[in-house]
Amino acid sequence: MFVNTMPRYEILSADAIGVLDRGWRRIVSEIGIQFAKPEAVELFRKAGQQVDGDVVKLDPEFVLEQVAKAPREFDVQARNPANNVHIGGDHMVFSGVYGCPFVREGDVRRDATLDDFRRLSMLAQSFPELDSAGGVICEPNDAPLDSRHLDMIYALQTVTDKIYMGNVVSGPNAADTIAMTSILFGGGDGKGRAKIEETPAVISLINCNSPLRWDDRMLDAQFEYCAANQPVVLTPFLLMGAMSPVSIPAALTQQLAEALSGIALAQLIRPGCPVIFGSFLSNIDMQSGSPAFGTPESAIGLLCTGQLARHYGLPFRTGGGLNASQTADAQSAYEALMTLLPTFLAGTNFVMHAAGWLEGGLVSCYEKFIIDVELLRMLRVEFTPLEIDEESLAFGAHEEVGHGGHFLGAAHTMERFRTCFYRPLLSSTANYERWLKQGGKDTAARASEICAKTLDEYQPPPMDEAVRAELQDYVDRRRTELGD
Amino acid sequence: MFVNTMPRYEILSADAIGVLDRGWRRIVSEIGIQFAKPEAVELFRKAGQQVDGDVVKLDPEFVLEQVAKAPREFDVQARNPANNVHIGGDHMVFSGVYGCPFVREGDVRRDATLDDFRRLSMLAQSFPELDSAGGVICEPNDAPLDSRHLDMIYALQTVTDKIYMGNVVSGPNAADTIAMTSILFGGGDGKGRAKIEETPAVISLINCNSPLRWDDRMLDAQFEYCAANQPVVLTPFLLMGAMSPVSIPAALTQQLAEALSGIALAQLIRPGCPVIFGSFLSNIDMQSGSPAFGTPESAIGLLCTGQLARHYGLPFRTGGGLNASQTADAQSAYEALMTLLPTFLAGTNFVMHAAGWLEGGLVSCYEKFIIDVELLRMLRVEFTPLEIDEESLAFGAHEEVGHGGHFLGAAHTMERFRTCFYRPLLSSTANYERWLKQGGKDTAARASEICAKTLDEYQPPPMDEAVRAELQDYVDRRRTELGD
Repeated sequence: MFVNTMPRYEILSADAIGVLDRGWRRIVSEIGIQFAKPEAVELFRKAGQQVDGDVVKLDPEFVLEQVAKAPREFDVQARNPANNVHIGGDHMVFSGVYGCPFVREGDVRRDATLDDFRRLSMLAQSFPELDSAGGVICEPNDAPLDSRHLDMIYALQTVTDKIYMGNVVSGPNAADTIAMTSILFGGGDGKGRAKIEETPAVISLINCNSPLRWDDRMLDAQFEYCAANQPVVLTPFLLMGAMSPVSIPAALTQQLAEALSGIALAQLIRPGCPVIFGSFLSNIDMQSGSPAFGTPESAIGLLCTGQLARHYGLPFRTGGGLNASQTADAQSAYEALMTLLPTFLAGTNFVMHAAGWLEGGLVSCYEKFIIDVELLRMLRVEFTPLEIDEESLAFGAHEEVGHGGHFLGAAHTMERFRTCFYRPLLSSTANYERWLKQGGKDTAARASEICAKTLDEYQPPPMDEAVRAELQDYVDRRRTELGD
Repeated sequence: MFVNTMPRYEILSADAIGVLDRGWRRIVSEIGIQFAKPEAVELFRKAGQQVDGDVVKLDPEFVLEQVAKAPREFDVQARNPANNVHIGGDHMVFSGVYGCPFVREGDVRRDATLDDFRRLSMLAQSFPELDSAGGVICEPNDAPLDSRHLDMIYALQTVTDKIYMGNVVSGPNAADTIAMTSILFGGGDGKGRAKIEETPAVISLINCNSPLRWDDRMLDAQFEYCAANQPVVLTPFLLMGAMSPVSIPAALTQQLAEALSGIALAQLIRPGCPVIFGSFLSNIDMQSGSPAFGTPESAIGLLCTGQLARHYGLPFRTGGGLNASQTADAQSAYEALMTLLPTFLAGTNFVMHAAGWLEGGLVSCYEKFIIDVELLRMLRVEFTPLEIDEESLAFGAHEEVGHGGHFLGAAHTMERFRTCFYRPLLSSTANYERWLKQGGKDTAARASEICAKTLDEYQPPPMDEAVRAELQDYVDRRRTELGD
């Protein structure tokens, strides 16, 4: 996995952090946070916090005491141990786009299906730049609603051997995710559960219903996952102008209030359970009223989020290949990179939506997936420290070539030409005539070809047939119980 | 003009700078630099440097003594004083693409003409993100070769009222540039020359014939400009693998050796004359043999260059919207931003090729120009420090909205919605149905429309008719003398 040991780009002064710190303390203590689940409110009440209906007014010091119980770093295991990941520190984990009802493939935009879910998961499996397909790489609209989560988990477990994300639609869905994960890691007889409680195996996204409200179904899922010691990404969902004020500092304080309150709850459910400080922070385009992505405001927010998460000693999630574009065109690329490059500058620990995101997250796009993989490949090289020593100066090459010559045939070049530079997956440097001869294909057209070839060459990762059968049995049984 | 007071992203340790520093010292003293102009060699000989034919072996301490004579910062005046610029410190100056023999407009790629030169200059005049059209925004192939420089300078002086770059094809062309600039700033009677010697008015690009060789025609131009106290951008032209070894540290030391030797020469010609430490650093795609741009290696080189230029106390040039793509597609955008974002992270003082660059610099593209302007607009907002104080936290908005509400109609939002966020020029956030209704145009198609509208609305900046006539007379007279 990728470890980013390059410097962090930090833009907040100590004074600014102080102002933001006072800001969230005031929000949680004076306005409070709404928890739409009585068990959550009860946990806070028992811990001595002031409760008014389903609103909890939190003592900031109490919040920080709870937050301090969360591990700064932790491991998550994959069924293929080579794909285990570490969350926190300098480590960066990348997962696919999440939650799209539509897909785009070439010029066709359509409802996503379970077949799309599998094919997009195959792409995620095929590229080492992705540590995970994510959880809802697209919404399989053709699968029955009540049991769809079983199909998705089963696909993630069988099509990929990487880590995956859990279902959060309800408490029972979360329980199914945990049960199937237990089967995958040691059988449904309790042995598997013990194994994943020891080392977590599924990460789940718990979104806040911002502003300042945690909803019942998400909380139900959070209770299940935290009780099983599985990490949750507690994520304020902030499109400034809609879910938060139209000011970056205001959004940052709100983000702290929401994320830290959710993390405190996690620690009340099970002290020491792993969490990730989540951020999904962009803004509304005040002209169109639609969400905007890859904006300057979101990049600034992203950089600040990293610095704040480190300030509170928490691994964090931000970033991805976000954009608002309708096709895999120039805008989709520059907005994605306007998010992804700060994602690396901030040293983000967990990156959702790292590949495939299009149209504000409504569309999972095959070609954009390939474009994003190219960006990730480039950024991994860009954020690898340069080794500078006497030998790297290649003085001998200068002695060989002299003045006004060229290095194409120099011994130093010949020894290194295969590996000396980044080799693109998608980008073309072909001259115009050659490019025309090759069909004059633009980036999206070439991405489409790479996508088809990758899917064609996909090999399912080996799997114990007994485990697969046990998973299939579980899915069949639960589907019947759910009436689908 | 834009002042970048955000932090610099610095990736070189003091040790690494020490290694690179020893590297260039060894190159200039042991291998030496070739100067293909006897007057240059003679200046170095007289100053006590070791000369062997046209190769000068330089004492590094002598080089640094000369470099120390160059101003750390300086002004450049435009004919419209509102467009004067400052070079150095936190200031960033942006100029258009430079040197393209072809243009691309929509789906058509063709030889550039003088009409293209004027139209592209009109674009540069129209957008405040550009401080200059540059110098050769495209090569006007339909203008007679010997007098083409006169047409270009005249166009830059009349179509725009911003600073511009001088011709460097020969010493006489440089002399014409200086003469026409003198006319523009105070008449051809010597008064103009005195005015531009006091405050420079034209910046010129002097490229090294890397490795380690300064060519005669470029040096002829440098002598003219330095003698007239006009700034020169001394630029090693490094495509690693061709003009330098296939190692970033090796390219960085070579870049130091070349740029510092050229700057030393400038100071011998006229002590104290303004210079810019130039960098044009990318790599060959070792598979295709073609130049690659927007690569991880070029981004790393860019960041290091900024840090090194500051180490030696010099204003510097790097970056731009570089890419190798054949059309204004996703690759053109991500490679451009992969260069432009580091350009801002490094706090580059003078940015050539900031708008319009396509196809490795062979093509000046109208649509890409608009894409780059959008990137510059976004980055200017992104690199503006965030103001964080109590008021920015908008606590009152939270009190108004409460839990689970929205801020769309909040008083705080209503007071700020027009100016609170970046307003895109080109990017679309339209939802899919609306986008389809609007014609389903991708970014390049929308850029084309913005381009047409901008050219349509272009207003020539006011100009003193006597000055224009004097310039025209100069052009006519010189054209006759040159036999065109």
